[in-house]
Amino acid sequence: CSPSSCLLKDEDTFKILIATDIHLGYLEKDAIRGQDTYNTLNEILDCAKKNKVDFILLGGDLFHENKPSRRCLHSSISMLRKYCMGDSPVTFNILSDQTVNFNTTQFPWVNYQDENLNISIPVFSIHGNHDDPTGAEGLCALDLLSASGLVNHFGHSHSVERIEISPVLMQKGSTKLALYGLGSIPDERLYRMFVNKQVTMLRPKEDQDGWFNLFAIHQNRSKHGPTNYIPEQFLDDFLDLVVWGHEHECLITPARNEQQLFYVTQPGSSVATSLSPGEATKKHIGLLKVKGRKMNMQKIPLKTVRQFFIQDVVLADYEDLFTPETPQVTKKMEDLCYAKVIEMLEEAEKERIGCPLTPEKPLVRLRVDYSGGFETFNTSRFSQKFVDRVANPKDIIHFLRKHEVTIDYGKLIKPTAVGGLRVEDMVKQYFEAAEQKVQLSLLTEQGMGKAIQEYVDKDEKDAIEELITCQLEKTQRHLQARGVTTEQDIDAEARRCHRPSGANLHDCVSFLTVPALSSSSFSKNSSQSQTSRGVEFDDSDDEVREEMISCYKIPLLPVAFII
Amino acid sequence: CSPSSCLLKDEDTFKILIATDIHLGYLEKDAIRGQDTYNTLNEILDCAKKNKVDFILLGGDLFHENKPSRRCLHSSISMLRKYCMGDSPVTFNILSDQTVNFNTTQFPWVNYQDENLNISIPVFSIHGNHDDPTGAEGLCALDLLSASGLVNHFGHSHSVERIEISPVLMQKGSTKLALYGLGSIPDERLYRMFVNKQVTMLRPKEDQDGWFNLFAIHQNRSKHGPTNYIPEQFLDDFLDLVVWGHEHECLITPARNEQQLFYVTQPGSSVATSLSPGEATKKHIGLLKVKGRKMNMQKIPLKTVRQFFIQDVVLADYEDLFTPETPQVTKKMEDLCYAKVIEMLEEAEKERIGCPLTPEKPLVRLRVDYSGGFETFNTSRFSQKFVDRVANPKDIIHFLRKHEVTIDYGKLIKPTAVGGLRVEDMVKQYFEAAEQKVQLSLLTEQGMGKAIQEYVDKDEKDAIEELITCQLEKTQRHLQARGVTTEQDIDAEARRCHRPSGANLHDCVSFLTVPALSSSSFSKNSSQSQTSRGVEFDDSDDEVREEMISCYKIPLLPVAFII
Repeated sequence: CSPSSCLLKDEDTFKILIATDIHLGYLEKDAIRGQDTYNTLNEILDCAKKNKVDFILLGGDLFHENKPSRRCLHSSISMLRKYCMGDSPVTFNILSDQTVNFNTTQFPWVNYQDENLNISIPVFSIHGNHDDPTGAEGLCALDLLSASGLVNHFGHSHSVERIEISPVLMQKGSTKLALYGLGSIPDERLYRMFVNKQVTMLRPKEDQDGWFNLFAIHQNRSKHGPTNYIPEQFLDDFLDLVVWGHEHECLITPARNEQQLFYVTQPGSSVATSLSPGEATKKHIGLLKVKGRKMNMQKIPLKTVRQFFIQDVVLADYEDLFTPETPQVTKKMEDLCYAKVIEMLEEAEKERIGCPLTPEKPLVRLRVDYSGGFETFNTSRFSQKFVDRVANPKDIIHFLRKHEVTIDYGKLIKPTAVGGLRVEDMVKQYFEAAEQKVQLSLLTEQGMGKAIQEYVDKDEKDAIEELITCQLEKTQRHLQARGVTTEQDIDAEARRCHRPSGANLHDCVSFLTVPALSSSSFSKNSSQSQTSRGVEFDDSDDEVREEMISCYKIPLLPVAFII
Repeated sequence: CSPSSCLLKDEDTFKILIATDIHLGYLEKDAIRGQDTYNTLNEILDCAKKNKVDFILLGGDLFHENKPSRRCLHSSISMLRKYCMGDSPVTFNILSDQTVNFNTTQFPWVNYQDENLNISIPVFSIHGNHDDPTGAEGLCALDLLSASGLVNHFGHSHSVERIEISPVLMQKGSTKLALYGLGSIPDERLYRMFVNKQVTMLRPKEDQDGWFNLFAIHQNRSKHGPTNYIPEQFLDDFLDLVVWGHEHECLITPARNEQQLFYVTQPGSSVATSLSPGEATKKHIGLLKVKGRKMNMQKIPLKTVRQFFIQDVVLADYEDLFTPETPQVTKKMEDLCYAKVIEMLEEAEKERIGCPLTPEKPLVRLRVDYSGGFETFNTSRFSQKFVDRVANPKDIIHFLRKHEVTIDYGKLIKPTAVGGLRVEDMVKQYFEAAEQKVQLSLLTEQGMGKAIQEYVDKDEKDAIEELITCQLEKTQRHLQARGVTTEQDIDAEARRCHRPSGANLHDCVSFLTVPALSSSSFSKNSSQSQTSRGVEFDDSDDEVREEMISCYKIPLLPVAFII
């Protein structure tokens, strides 16, 4: 195109860099892979700058850990400051109410309009399941960047009862873009809310057809269970493009959804956090152009991403070479696997020619199906042969048998206990074990499980204390309302209150999983019993609590043991 | 003064707000006191803004925790952004090499000269012992603010061998200010370095007498042990004013030091972190004016600080009222204490009149000397009487006997274990206990103690792993250098290397306490033995390490138990 027409085009065209699941800090302590996520964030930001995009849109999980390390926070701040501040002017306007769009800091406006910050590339991000809000304040790691003015965190719904997604309305020249976002919410809960029609996407009243409607979401897209994902047909028909975060496989080319109503782009993660086939797809980010209601997505391959090759081998298919009865069958198996790995390494090397930014050692996974009477071999000796050439020498080989289900844990909540057991399950097992004569008299096993999981998964140190305080206060209110005074009555009544239909305990559990829930909305249910006693009860609060603790001897020690 | 002379004066006068030991986040989970430190930081920043100071100088311990909570980081970022950004111009220049002054981020220049940030009040801060640098990167919480461009972190010495303090040279009109800073270093080490003449304060070559020399330090000022403090006479004579952080008692009026050579101002903390007499002194910050080599310090009382009253009572002094043999002596003691507390509360109330910003419930401490045959009484019942009027009802009364030494732990490293025992001591005791047949064969008790203390005190999760890696690598190098191969020899040689004159293990210990030490300078000592084997050794590194671990069975379980 001629310079003038290009200029004309640019004036009305949004150029948006799309990326998701950067998982900054993933394996940051690994001697080989420690720098990977930092290099890739750097590449992504550099790419945004070189392409002079209008803004960057991130689909969640910028951080791998809910509480990122100091190094991780420091690096993210430094890189964003380096690449996203500067003199290039931002040429689009925001027409919506920014105090509604950006509601997680004291500065409820888009960063590039802050007169104290010189932003050249605004970053808009929803939070993912890894970096979701926690604690009484409902803050997430992204909010630190947001308070610093480096990121615009949007799509944080503060209500648990209904979600109203209010778009960031942007205009560049004649193009009008409505940016919707919804930060990660447990799939089951969001599924239920969609079913109950508690999710609303607001639309501008005027010129509804004039807007390009873009939606960023961070949920399971593939079905992990009956309600453990969000079916595309749940989403509103008026949408034009959905940027789907959370799923790590790069399927970035926009594809029409089943009903042919809108497109979905799934950029995928920019780092492999599991050695599953989905992560082996070449990683890309996208350069999305929107003009009027037309769009174009350019795939940009990431150069700093470590290569990942995966192959399957079924031993029973090699009966012309060996069977379980063949002498020295182990050596033959090893030789076969060795050859397969070498094959992948050669492929990797070929592909890497002319790519100086690509790390030298690739990730390699060989899934060995040993069904049919074969035995596994010692992988540590095998690994030794590849320490110099492979980034993951210790887990190259993965033995499995036919029909063994391989779960992609990378996409699920990370297993925090040995052998993939979730902490919550461990707590349940602990209390179920008959020989453990431990019985919770005040807390519930479910609440305890959730609290301990928060503690472990999200490093949420107050989770257990919050549960205890919450349950204590509830029980106290219950006892006060019933006018219970003697010790025996307290015991009996507390147990009755403790194992009812479940209404009481669910409040405490949801308090933990829905951190943004305010304490006022939380106490609503039991406000009646509280007001019946008024101020008098509040006064003796400390005394009652102390007595309760000594009286019921909440078994905290087993918990410490489990952790 | 007339407007014109005032203007003239201001043009050459540095106006500096001086504060220290803000301990943001201290007791942030306390229902009553949780907001205190946040309110006071807000007041301090507001005061700086209202007084239109040129800059704020902080003497360390802005944060109470080495790893501040999300809430704490979020609040500090928000408040600094709110108060320190804006259009008021900064009218002094920096003449020194900023890459030397501000060396902890990728942005080695003063924040107000960054063209992307609109800073109205630059903050200069050294780090304290609470928020000191940790980890392999040597970063501290302040560096997150520093990377965000909200604070200028200076005075961070990266060397352990010698300290060269290079001043930030500032000029406003005709006044030239040399700002020296030294972030907190363990007192014993700094004491030793001073004695060994390893601490140098650099001075501008020209016009040495034309500079006002200001030094910010964060160390023990009062003698806690023979080398556990920094005597004032260690400091250079050419200094004009020393801002001494770390000591919590407010002695902000500049006082000449013993040798009459320079002045020392000790602003004290802006929150009481212990209930000792030093903390009961009224809290102030300072407005320092420097013109030429003249200075003036204006004390500004802090309004948001919770009042703290402390009194001593010696029971034996009341023999006209009761003796240990008096019937119902306990009640009489309680009545006396009750009266004393009421007295303090009345005093507090009187003082609080007209101070709407001062929190309603004061801190109250009554130290009861019960020597002479008295017995202590139940304080929990006593506390109940004051739950509505005192911020610390549970620890109003502190029983002690004559000659009992009351240590001001607020100024020392916080006791992390029950009963004031330090973690390090617990580890030592653990290994010393004869019935524990646990012996460390590879690690040292001293190193282990330090590592566990880092883990507990500073939430430094990698400390133990780093110690193990470090000690393993040292041992491996040692074994390689000696050409040891058989298992018996390894065992014997490793033990020999493990309990020598101490040189080896000290390296690992100092690695933990001196995080900024680079790995290259760290391996210097043993580089000879390493190069003798060259690449070959590096290749088998993983294998050797794995064997070592299984061979020596490093007893990690007892550690987990201690934590």
